[in-house]
Amino acid sequence: MTKPRFTALVESLPATIPFVAPDALERSSGRPIRLRLGANESAFGVSPLARRAMLEAIERIAWYADPENFYLRRKLAEVYRVQMENLVVGSGIDDLLGLVVRTFVDPGSPVVTSLGSYPTFNYHVAGYGGVLHRVPYRNDHNDLEALAEAARKLNARLVYLANPDNPTGTWHGARRLCELLERLPDDCLVVLDEAYVEFAPPEDLLAIDAKDSRLIRLRTFSKAHGMAGVRIGYGIAAAETISAFDKVRLHFGVNMFAQVGARASLDDPQFIAGVVGAVDEGREDYYRLAGELGLPFIHSATNFVCFDMGSQAAAHSLVNTLFDRGVFIRMPGAPPLDRLIRVTVASALERAEFGRVMHELANKGLLRRNAIPVAA
Amino acid sequence: MTKPRFTALVESLPATIPFVAPDALERSSGRPIRLRLGANESAFGVSPLARRAMLEAIERIAWYADPENFYLRRKLAEVYRVQMENLVVGSGIDDLLGLVVRTFVDPGSPVVTSLGSYPTFNYHVAGYGGVLHRVPYRNDHNDLEALAEAARKLNARLVYLANPDNPTGTWHGARRLCELLERLPDDCLVVLDEAYVEFAPPEDLLAIDAKDSRLIRLRTFSKAHGMAGVRIGYGIAAAETISAFDKVRLHFGVNMFAQVGARASLDDPQFIAGVVGAVDEGREDYYRLAGELGLPFIHSATNFVCFDMGSQAAAHSLVNTLFDRGVFIRMPGAPPLDRLIRVTVASALERAEFGRVMHELANKGLLRRNAIPVAA
Repeated sequence: MTKPRFTALVESLPATIPFVAPDALERSSGRPIRLRLGANESAFGVSPLARRAMLEAIERIAWYADPENFYLRRKLAEVYRVQMENLVVGSGIDDLLGLVVRTFVDPGSPVVTSLGSYPTFNYHVAGYGGVLHRVPYRNDHNDLEALAEAARKLNARLVYLANPDNPTGTWHGARRLCELLERLPDDCLVVLDEAYVEFAPPEDLLAIDAKDSRLIRLRTFSKAHGMAGVRIGYGIAAAETISAFDKVRLHFGVNMFAQVGARASLDDPQFIAGVVGAVDEGREDYYRLAGELGLPFIHSATNFVCFDMGSQAAAHSLVNTLFDRGVFIRMPGAPPLDRLIRVTVASALERAEFGRVMHELANKGLLRRNAIPVAA
Repeated sequence: MTKPRFTALVESLPATIPFVAPDALERSSGRPIRLRLGANESAFGVSPLARRAMLEAIERIAWYADPENFYLRRKLAEVYRVQMENLVVGSGIDDLLGLVVRTFVDPGSPVVTSLGSYPTFNYHVAGYGGVLHRVPYRNDHNDLEALAEAARKLNARLVYLANPDNPTGTWHGARRLCELLERLPDDCLVVLDEAYVEFAPPEDLLAIDAKDSRLIRLRTFSKAHGMAGVRIGYGIAAAETISAFDKVRLHFGVNMFAQVGARASLDDPQFIAGVVGAVDEGREDYYRLAGELGLPFIHSATNFVCFDMGSQAAAHSLVNTLFDRGVFIRMPGAPPLDRLIRVTVASALERAEFGRVMHELANKGLLRRNAIPVAA
């Protein structure tokens, strides 16, 4: 008997997923995670205003949430001094990345990103039939010149850039981003993933110009706002771009807890400033720890820090050794970044415990930095 | 200056959305809704177990939820005596409809549905470039013979069927559904939208056979479970179908409140039985009201009842008259169903108030049933 046929595109896709979640790792290994330092979740809680708004939402949860995300978009418009027409809300940046790719990438369209950058973007490009071109990092930074050159050469529809960057934690200032925009083909859209923007030096930030049709900025409540589990993010872009999303997006996709929690969290900038301060302190702790252990590290503008293990083998071995001890971290998947381990800035107690484990491994000779040179 | 280009498909799509939400109607009219009877939301609350689970989830909301929806799928597998591999979870049936269309509909693929059926399915078909063929209702039922004939003639990839039906509330029993499956081409998938299944006569239900690759069944926590605002639904299908979804779905799309709330609600079948009983009672109230007002009505297997106003003009006028009095209801958008008004079975108090308003309109001569025959 013939069976229902998948699309040609779906048939052609591999059965892979962007990355395996800590929950799945726990289940498959049978080993509980006691230090969850691999997903860059916030250890600093949620605003009391957001908490109260979410608690109250339970009373109205039988109702559909507003598909226009009206009150959240109105608040965001106020915060960023843009129009509501410049704002789209989705179930996290992952959702919005899918929407951007779907809206701009025809099957076969070239798309440019950095080699080893956010895998979920790549997943969406594959899922809509785009052709991905990867540009290597340079000195652990996104190589803006090389990205621009690839985009020009290929006439790319999209260039993806995480700034501050995941997985390295490095960032480029406003002037450098302006140069990138100038160098790109006019009809190329920059997908600027600013998931970690709250942790970056404010003086380095590219000013928001919602009339600029050359880019879309994606932000989230999953990091500084401490609400990864509620799934909500937003995009700021030219009105024409936002209205195209309305033709295909899942209108009733964002849940009520997310809408009211995000809205309330924006009313509490002091809370967010406190989180940013705590993360700042935590990064310094990790820099000190790296010094104690004799490990190079990368200065970070995010809520995680990368320690340099010198080789893929050493980094990989440490990830596994730590997992055996109930410590979940991640490492980048592609050279030359795959000599790094990436550790979330957790609470002071968790950081102390992470430091204790790392020192213990060092004392046992299990923390070997491998200085074998890596092919760039 | 050239601007970033949308895909050819997005360019070709109209700037329409599936339907305008009550929140948007309130904002645009400046008129508050005091009786919300147009979205078939539950008036009977949420299970105390689900409420507690969602309250507790606030403590862990900084963490990403499990992209595999493991515990919910395990529970669903237990409830339906299927394998976890037969289950997909999404942000409501709307999300899953998009996923099904994306997975099975190539641009230009023919798809069959009923004329006047759920608009969000049509929206997704357009959004993925499918070509929609609409089959008129017959006697306010989905016309299964005509659907099968259209599917055969067109070699359709999908046939959409809501059973129990929205917007009519009518349903077909298991034997009739089996006949439909037999009549379809082997490579056609039936998208069986069972959003209202809990309210249907249990003896009429098609048994679940997860090995049957000819259909996918979509269910939700938005109706009987009273959790529309949390956005969660699931699909039951052959393992091969489910694993294809994993190639393109938004893995981190479903929020934590939804996962734990849905899981807990399944642990409380008594609560759901209570809701179903209350809705049953409410339908009888509406049938009586229709009798008092001299309006024909349709027996319903859902949490709403359709009253027959005799013509599109009379139905439309009543929808507007009610909205002016703060009562939100909907009416189907296409003939011959557009002579109906669709009213959610609300709480006893709300039903009494709806009855009062309808009697008042009747007394003022504002409730005119128009018996002009409608072209079928």
